[in-house]
Order: sequence, then C-alpha cells, then structure tokens
Amino acid sequence: METPLSPIDFARRARRLYPDRTAVVDGSLRWSYGEFFDRCDRWSRTLQHMGVGHGDRVAIISPNTHSHLEQYYAVPQIGAVTVPVNFRLTSDDFAYILKHSGARVVCAHRDHLEAVDTVREQLPEVVHFVALEGRKDGWLDYEAVLAGASTEFTPASVAETDMISLNYTSGTTANPKGVMITHRNTALNIMGHLMHTRITSADRYLWVLPMFHANGWCFTWAITAVGGTHVCLRKADPGLIFETIAREHITMLCAAPTILIGIANAPEELRRHAPHGVRVFTAGAPPAAATIERIEGELGWEITHVYGLTEVSPIVAISEWRPEHAGLPATERARIKARQGVEYLGNAEVRVVDDQDHEVPRDGATLGEIIIRGNAVMAGYYNDPEATARAIRDGWFRSGDAAVVHSDGYIEIRDRWKDVIISGGENISSVEVEGVLLRHPAVQEAAVVGVPHEKWGETPQAFIVLKAGATAGGEELRLFCRDHLAHFKVPHAFSFISELPKTATGKIQKYVLRGGRANIAAQ
Amino acid sequence: METPLSPIDFARRARRLYPDRTAVVDGSLRWSYGEFFDRCDRWSRTLQHMGVGHGDRVAIISPNTHSHLEQYYAVPQIGAVTVPVNFRLTSDDFAYILKHSGARVVCAHRDHLEAVDTVREQLPEVVHFVALEGRKDGWLDYEAVLAGASTEFTPASVAETDMISLNYTSGTTANPKGVMITHRNTALNIMGHLMHTRITSADRYLWVLPMFHANGWCFTWAITAVGGTHVCLRKADPGLIFETIAREHITMLCAAPTILIGIANAPEELRRHAPHGVRVFTAGAPPAAATIERIEGELGWEITHVYGLTEVSPIVAISEWRPEHAGLPATERARIKARQGVEYLGNAEVRVVDDQDHEVPRDGATLGEIIIRGNAVMAGYYNDPEATARAIRDGWFRSGDAAVVHSDGYIEIRDRWKDVIISGGENISSVEVEGVLLRHPAVQEAAVVGVPHEKWGETPQAFIVLKAGATAGGEELRLFCRDHLAHFKVPHAFSFISELPKTATGKIQKYVLRGGRANIAAQ
Repeated sequence: METPLSPIDFARRARRLYPDRTAVVDGSLRWSYGEFFDRCDRWSRTLQHMGVGHGDRVAIISPNTHSHLEQYYAVPQIGAVTVPVNFRLTSDDFAYILKHSGARVVCAHRDHLEAVDTVREQLPEVVHFVALEGRKDGWLDYEAVLAGASTEFTPASVAETDMISLNYTSGTTANPKGVMITHRNTALNIMGHLMHTRITSADRYLWVLPMFHANGWCFTWAITAVGGTHVCLRKADPGLIFETIAREHITMLCAAPTILIGIANAPEELRRHAPHGVRVFTAGAPPAAATIERIEGELGWEITHVYGLTEVSPIVAISEWRPEHAGLPATERARIKARQGVEYLGNAEVRVVDDQDHEVPRDGATLGEIIIRGNAVMAGYYNDPEATARAIRDGWFRSGDAAVVHSDGYIEIRDRWKDVIISGGENISSVEVEGVLLRHPAVQEAAVVGVPHEKWGETPQAFIVLKAGATAGGEELRLFCRDHLAHFKVPHAFSFISELPKTATGKIQKYVLRGGRANIAAQ
Repeated sequence: METPLSPIDFARRARRLYPDRTAVVDGSLRWSYGEFFDRCDRWSRTLQHMGVGHGDRVAIISPNTHSHLEQYYAVPQIGAVTVPVNFRLTSDDFAYILKHSGARVVCAHRDHLEAVDTVREQLPEVVHFVALEGRKDGWLDYEAVLAGASTEFTPASVAETDMISLNYTSGTTANPKGVMITHRNTALNIMGHLMHTRITSADRYLWVLPMFHANGWCFTWAITAVGGTHVCLRKADPGLIFETIAREHITMLCAAPTILIGIANAPEELRRHAPHGVRVFTAGAPPAAATIERIEGELGWEITHVYGLTEVSPIVAISEWRPEHAGLPATERARIKARQGVEYLGNAEVRVVDDQDHEVPRDGATLGEIIIRGNAVMAGYYNDPEATARAIRDGWFRSGDAAVVHSDGYIEIRDRWKDVIISGGENISSVEVEGVLLRHPAVQEAAVVGVPHEKWGETPQAFIVLKAGATAGGEELRLFCRDHLAHFKVPHAFSFISELPKTATGKIQKYVLRGGRANIAAQ
C-alpha cells in the first residue's frame, strides 16, 4: 500500500502524539502542538476562503517567527505551495520573485510591509497582502483573521511528487531561479536528518538559521516530526543567541560558519552561562579549525558539518562521526569535521567526477565536480527548462562545487568548479594558489584564473593587489609559489592591479578577470 | 527526480563508504563490507547464470549464518524475491511454502537438507537445490560455486513497488499465507528503525532474532545501511548469547520476550562479564516487569518494546522514550515500556477503532482493534485475493489485535480482537477476565468466550478447570469476579470442565469453546 511521502504526514502524527508538548517558543509566546496546529488550521481555512487551492503560491517574507513557521503547515496541507523569500533582498528582488513565482498571497512581517508596498503596482496577480505582524493600510491583519476563523478546512489530496515549495536561489550572476521542491524531496530530506542527527522529542531547537533559507534545511518539519520544540530567534545576534540558549535550555541549532565565529568569539560574560552539549550543525562553508576548537573545546558543544544546495532539498552529505575517529589527534578530528563528508542515507547518491564524468581517485588531491542524483534532487527550475537542462545532465545534478575525495570516502570542497584551472590534464584549484599567494607578506589580495595556453590548454594567471607601500615583483612571487606548490600549479603570469573587480556584496568577479585580462593588466 | 526507495540503494551506499569496516562475524569468520559484497556479487552472478531473473523466487531455510545474510543482498539486486522460511517447520510445511511461493531455487543449511529431500518429489518447479553449508548428493555446494564465480552480474532495474520478499505467516488456523513485501515497504521500515533506534556505525548487532522472521525485522538491511557489524548467532542459547556479547563487544540485539527471560535468569557466572549499555529490542509480546527490572536494573541494559506484524513490513510502533518519563517511578516506567507504544515515523498510521471504525477514547480502558494504513502495509497475500480483501478493508489493514489507548497516545494490546466479547455495547477483554479468575485459589485454568444474549448481544461465559482436589461453585466465582471487575465484565455462566481444548502447541482453541459449548458443558 502506498501513501504519499510528505511532511504533512509527519505533522499528522505529531498532532496526534504530542498535543501537549511545547511546539514553539517565540519571545514570551509559547504554544503546545495542539495550539500550534489549531492556528495552522485556522489559517488553512482562511486561505481556502480566499480561494487558494492546489498548486497556488503563498509567498513569505519574514524573519524567524511563529507565524512564519505556521506557513509551512497551513499552506501545504491545503495543497498550496510556499515561496519563502530572503527578507534581506531589495524591493526589486521581491517584485521579481513574487511575479516569477505567480504568488497569489504575500505574507510579510512588519519590517517588510513598506518594501512590498513600493512594488505593489507591479504585482497584479497577488490577490491578498497579509501582515503576519504589524498593521498597515491595504494589509490583512493575520492575527485578527485567525482569531475569527474556524479550524475546519478541507485537507488536500496531494501526490508525493507535487510541489511543496518554490525556493529561489540567490542569483549572484543572473536572476534568481525558482527551485521546485516536492513533498517527496522534503520528506526524504527530513528522514535523512532524523537518521543522521539523532533529533528526539527532548530537543529544543534554536532558530538561528533563517527559516526561508532552503526552507530552514527542512528543520521546520524535522523538529515537529519528533515532537521537539522550535525556539524562534528573530536576529542572529551573539548576545541574543547566548541569552536564549540559557533561558530556553537549547540543545541544538544550525548556523552558518560566520555566525559560529561570532559565537566562538563572544565575550566571556556571554559564554559563561552557556549549557554544555549543544549540538551545532553548520553548512555553506567549512568551519575553521579555530572555530571548531573554541566551540568544542571551550564551550563543550559538538559541531557537525553538513553539505547541500537549494536544488537538492537541501542537505545531501554529512561529515559523519565514526568510532575510528575517536583515537585521532584533535587537529585531525577538526580537519575531518571541516570536510563535507559522506552522502546522506536514502535521499541521494553523491559523486565527484572529472570532466569525462569518471570518478576521481580517493587521493585527497584530484579535483572533480560534485554531482548528485536521487530523491533529493529538485523537480527542476520553475519555468526555466534551459537552466534545468544545464543543471541536470545525464540524470545527475551538477553542483558546480569542485572537491577532492579522501581515502575514507569523505568529500572536501576546494573551489567552485568553474574556477578550477585545467592545465596539462591536471586540475588546479584557484583557491589553493590564492591561499599560497596570500601568505606572502606583500600581498593584500589575490585572484587566480585560467588563461588559454597552446600547449597546456590553460595555465594559471594571478591578479595581485599589493599592500599599501609594499613591493614585490612577478619573479619573487613565482619563486614563493614554487616553494609552496606543485610546479604545475605555479602561475605563469602575474598582473599587479589596484583593485579586484567585485560584486556589490564583495564577491570577486573572476569572469571579469578572464574576459578583460588585457584591460585590467594594462591599468 | 525520483529513484526507487530500496534497501539495494542502502547497500550501494555501504559498499562505497564502508569497504573496510567489518560487515559480518560468524564464529571465526570475519568479513569486511568489501569482502561481504564481493561474495554477494558472486552469488548474484551465479543465480543469473542459473536463469534466475526479475520476480523469480529464491527460498532460504537456514539459521542465522553469514550465507543466509548474503541472500538478502544477492537476490534482490538481480530483481529476484527472497522467500525466507521458518526452519523450525516440518517437511510438509516446507513443501507447502516452496510450492505455493513457486520457488525456483532453494538454499538450505546442512541441518535441513534431509528434510527438504523427503519432499523433493513434490517440488518439480524447483530448478536448483543449494547447500549453504554442508554437502549432500543432489545439492550444489554454495562455497564451491562462489569460489569459482566472477563478481560481474547485471544489476536489475527495480521499481520501488516491486516485491523484494515473500514472507510466510505462521498459519495457526489455516495454511500459511505469503505476505508480499515491496522494496518501498522495506526501505521505509529500515528508515523507521534508523530514526527510532539510533543505530550507528559503532553498533555491533547480535543476531538472536531469526533472520527469517519477517526478514529479521529488516535489521538484515538496517545494520548494513549505517556500516554496523552483523554478528551471527546460530542458536539462541543464553550461554552462547552472553559469551558472544562479551567476546564481540555487542551493543545491540533483538529478541522475543521468551529469550529475554532466559537472559534475565541466566546464572550469575554467565552474566558477570556482560558489558553495560546493550540496547535490546523486543516484540511479539510485552516484556514482563520482572524481566525489564532484571535486565535494566541488574545488567544495565536498555529494553525497547516495538510492535509489528509480518503484514506491515513488520514494525510500525515503538514504546518511545520521552523526556517526561525520566521523572516517573521505576514501576511506572516499566509499565510504559511494556506497551506497544506509538506509531513509527513515515511508514504507517496506526489507530485503535471500535466495530464502527470510530477511534476509541484515550482512557486506557476501552478496547478496539488496531488498524494500520500506509507505506508499511504489504502489497497483499500472494495468490489469495480473498484473504487480502478480508485483511485490508476500506484502506486499512486489520491487525486482529485488541488494544486500549492511554492518555499519552500509547497503545497497549489486551487481547486478540476475535476473542473480545461485546456486551451491551461494551468491549470486554477475555484475557482480563481470565486473569481475575486465575487469581482465585481453586482455579487451575480459565477460558472466557462470548455467548449470544438476547438483550446484551453477547455475555461472557467462563470455562473453568479446577485444581486437583479444589472445589468452587459458579456463585463463588461470580462473587469473586464482582469484587475484581466492572459488573458488565462478570461472566453470566460458569462451566466446569476437566480439560480445555488446545492445539498441539498448547494454545487454547476458543472457537471450540464457542461452537461446542453445550457439549463441553455437559461433560
């Protein structure tokens, strides 16, 4: 007998089994699962009254609040689709995503009502604007509507391959793309978490990670599935984090490494009352050894590094602890913890392949691209078959991440695949060469790209910004590189420039360096 | 993107990630996952050479050995179907199951070659007889075949709804029925285990539970999925259990309560060297409080009670530990541990309903039948649509177990549903009334059944065997029952007989008591 794999089924179970357990804490608000699902049902009822039905989009622009969390239950259980939007984007970005997704309802937090209003005229398809918190003309008051609504709604009949969520990528080089995530994608990612992260009903989860971010890595549903407690945090401020951890007896959180650095370096008076044993999951970039050491050694917390992308629902790998790690020195353990690790159970197959699609050897040195197939992979990009075809080729999703595989099968990302330089058949990580250059005392910034070469295919070229007042020539840097790198990785040319081309958010634009080499070098 | 949910995928992952970890220990034999899968592949190749393909049946009659375990990988990965047979059955039972399942290959352990040979003439469809251990004329030597085989086989393309296993029920009242279990059924049961039992690569699992029994509750695959170690035990003898636990540093096992009683009451010299912290899973009947107390209190192990049936792949409920249990007195904790508990995540929905299919209240008293729907439920009984239609009605599998639901949602079985007496709209557990009668000093044995009644529908009638030399009349027993039971549960009639009708294995035949009341009462 088959019934649809869906987080709706996990919610059904939670409402039966955990009605009296605390579902969500948001400041002084505190709701049991019974109360929480009652609120979700009222909102489902209201949405159905508004005419929202199967496949319709409901967009959310909000920090981590209880009403934000409610959307992940109220919307799918009537067969509609959530569109979680990064609230840090501009009004123009909001307009693009709301239009592209075809949202019929927009739910926004008080901080974002104004920004949406400035683009409201561009959104004729949006039928209802709902203020999840705060009041404003032209906005429905969520709490007032809920108070007047019945809990009687018509549960949708969903197929597991129906879309549950349309998550937009950050779009650094082009417009954001809408990633179509299905109920089955999500259910298997949640089950992956539950198998790998040992979440139980005893867990009290702190919402540091934004809920909108690839749907909060599905912890929006995973915590509920086991009857744990969601503790909302509206701002990822270290002081607030420590205060909430102590007050709410937090056992677990997810956060980007940049937030972990803030935690690791928080003042002693903040850290003093932190409970031991908090489990911390991180992704997006490997946590630095110093961060791991301070958080594990000094705070007595446990860091686990996981890996994923919005397109794979989103987590597909974990730097899994194994009993054989217990005997290793701390530095080696930290090195393993910083790796992206091994594939999750049951949702994906993860490989690292060269440009002929052959798996790279497990030598910790040969670079390849991470490719992924299986139940974690999205249904595709919404309304963009070309981008989908580029991303999923021969049945494998191309992550764009360049990685090595260690002898134990653990994957470690070294670069973006498009920034890898292929010279004489060898793959060179631009990040590795840049790392060496940055160790030279005269170098302020460095960017390495591949340039065409008759014999080698490509060779590395370095673009260098020197420190104010410092001097160093190409030959000096070349010799420095030869001392610290395999010979084939040493740049063939060094260009000294006053500034690296960057995006508004500070990312180096390597495509500018590749395309406009002559121009920049001539500056 | 959808790929089939299947234990084959978990095995694929294990062979990539854990090639050097110990897969299986069987006496002095010890194989890594690399070696284990190499053996499986050789056998897959051989089966394909024998002409075994998609959907073909391979039967297994064997205790818990490494070669038995190998079948659960070698057979499904070529799309064939395992038929695990209870080796304690008679030759005639073997013949029935082998014929009914349409087995093309029979793999048997040395202890069972003779028994199969006595019915070989009844099995014209079996093409190959394979001795997994031992040698005998007319039997292929498994080890010799493996030694000469290549590992190159053609992996099957399976759909997740394809059958992986045909498990025969014990058939106490009729012929055994073949339960069709799919790849999806199995994958979700394994994931259920991994979410609820916290198995990791550090686990060393002792095979006390027979592997054939509803496929070893899927631990045949769950242990492999995380890279744990299978430790084979060929006989569930307490001495051997303790010796192997100590020698192999066992962390986890599954066993029926009757085996646990043997463990609890083993001599002190056996128990002395047992490691602490072994996780024990039990099912089939609730563990007795005394057993829990001895095993948890004295050995320092942890008992978890799970619930299932072959027809639901097989585990669908667990007496889940919750943080709120920590503060309870030990007797109350033992009482909770003895309950069947709450539904597993992601594979089934479990309800307890009255004969109108309404859920019973959570009062710990009202009896209903446990019904189950969802991905755990079998595809049906093989070649028996009538039995399938009786078992799965209105989309729910009828377990035949009568249970109450406690206020926390935990289910507790009280009787077989067919033995429950419905009197004046109230459900009466025959087991409860029998329990009271057995506390009367004159009563040796008691069986309570429902008899038709004009006003009440049914009323309870008790059949009593008195102790040798003891005397007690119906009125005395009636008053005794009134002191210890709700009034409506007190039997309306007491029949004193010399012996209760029983099956060969000692089970009371209540249908005889119901049908032949007058006759027996007249004795």
